[in-house]
Amino acid sequence: MSSSRDALHFPPALAEPLEPYIPPRPPPLRPTRDRRPFVTLTFATSLDSALALAPGAQTPLSGPSSKAMTHHLRARHAAILVGAGTAAADDPSLNCRIAGTGGYGGAERLAGQPRPVVVDPGARWEWRGKKALGLAAEGRGRGPWVVVREGVKGSIAGERVEALEAVGGKVLEVRAGADGRMEWADVFEVLAREGIDSVMVEGGAGVINKLLEPGNMGLVDSVIVTIAPTWLGQGGVVVSPPRRQDGEGKAVAAARLKDVKWCPLGEDVVLCGRLQS
Amino acid sequence: MSSSRDALHFPPALAEPLEPYIPPRPPPLRPTRDRRPFVTLTFATSLDSALALAPGAQTPLSGPSSKAMTHHLRARHAAILVGAGTAAADDPSLNCRIAGTGGYGGAERLAGQPRPVVVDPGARWEWRGKKALGLAAEGRGRGPWVVVREGVKGSIAGERVEALEAVGGKVLEVRAGADGRMEWADVFEVLAREGIDSVMVEGGAGVINKLLEPGNMGLVDSVIVTIAPTWLGQGGVVVSPPRRQDGEGKAVAAARLKDVKWCPLGEDVVLCGRLQS
Repeated sequence: MSSSRDALHFPPALAEPLEPYIPPRPPPLRPTRDRRPFVTLTFATSLDSALALAPGAQTPLSGPSSKAMTHHLRARHAAILVGAGTAAADDPSLNCRIAGTGGYGGAERLAGQPRPVVVDPGARWEWRGKKALGLAAEGRGRGPWVVVREGVKGSIAGERVEALEAVGGKVLEVRAGADGRMEWADVFEVLAREGIDSVMVEGGAGVINKLLEPGNMGLVDSVIVTIAPTWLGQGGVVVSPPRRQDGEGKAVAAARLKDVKWCPLGEDVVLCGRLQS
Repeated sequence: MSSSRDALHFPPALAEPLEPYIPPRPPPLRPTRDRRPFVTLTFATSLDSALALAPGAQTPLSGPSSKAMTHHLRARHAAILVGAGTAAADDPSLNCRIAGTGGYGGAERLAGQPRPVVVDPGARWEWRGKKALGLAAEGRGRGPWVVVREGVKGSIAGERVEALEAVGGKVLEVRAGADGRMEWADVFEVLAREGIDSVMVEGGAGVINKLLEPGNMGLVDSVIVTIAPTWLGQGGVVVSPPRRQDGEGKAVAAARLKDVKWCPLGEDVVLCGRLQS
């Protein structure tokens, strides 16, 4: 099954500037009580901050180098995470195609392949027949973990759970508040307990905007945004966190980056930074 | 009146990469029938493409180097243009403070000072007492030209016109269509007839979005966007042109840049390019 025909290469000269913004090797030691993985937020937008022309519209935005960069970053994280909306709309592969990774010329089965994680509180994503499961079946990716709200697992049809487990995936439950919502801190804690020490969050807009909110920002270790020199136009799916106000009720910037680095990459630019708390 | 106390400096090493994107010296020769100036679209946005938190909210976005760059660009254009909304909300200075410019240490009165142009079809901007007129009175800027719809000049109170003319400004009329709207091509043609061979368009969002539309894109020679590593958050004043559709009614990107160059500038990045037609 191993094949290098679709394998991608990301030149070390382009990879080097990103190094301070991705999980160190070995992964960071955190205090035991702070059980959370290194979290990298990464996505590609237009100049008008859109991820796509419309929900589910595959929108070619960034160039080939950006694609290779994404796969390079995937190789450096234990897990890659998307929301259920993105999983349903885009049917993403959620694997790593860098040459030398397991399934792409690598000697070792699944070596370097990140764990796909789909956050799907109500288990509405129909994972059967999807790309991520097909690649896992072929040995070109790991079986996806689906993160659902506490109590939901029992309501999922047995054959759906079996299909997931057959490719090495599983359903994980995370506790929910009285309002039925899961906290991002709890999602990352559950992943840490499962041995995940780094997570690359890839989208969609709902997930990203939520993680850029004041209450969640502290969970994010670094941000890597690719910007393409294109305006998609009004009505796109946009990264823009909710408004913030200062103590006097005056609007202030929602989020700022520090330790900023801009790296031109083909026609695009890659912005690396850390969130200012 | 001449003073260099507020003068700005923009280092040649930072200016050099911008050179292909600003009006050449001497200005480009255009066919006589194509009477239009070299038009540069320039503005600063957040990562979520906002110019400001709200209309009229002075929003510090880009760093000190970006400010010096703006004034360097102003020195290289015959005119700088804003819409009436921006003029009313921001009370901009609309002059050039680069050291050596007339009024800022320059030997020659007004040398290097661009002509401020405010596009204000209905003459709703109250220019009396505004910064641009004050600077013109002090010899630190040229008197503003206010571009109104054909037939409007006669309806402006005599003392308003006199106040403008007293500082070397004037009211210019541009013909309007049956719907009372002026075309951007006509605005630039009137400016060209007045001897303006280059225009730097600085905003606001309404003007920029209009010039990024298919029918106007051809009037724009280059685009220089400064992007700050900040998300202002939902509800800002946003640069995002109207949606475009292809022949089959499918949404496509509204506008793309070619000949792209990304220049890091302090914490910001400066994107230079030309619009793809």
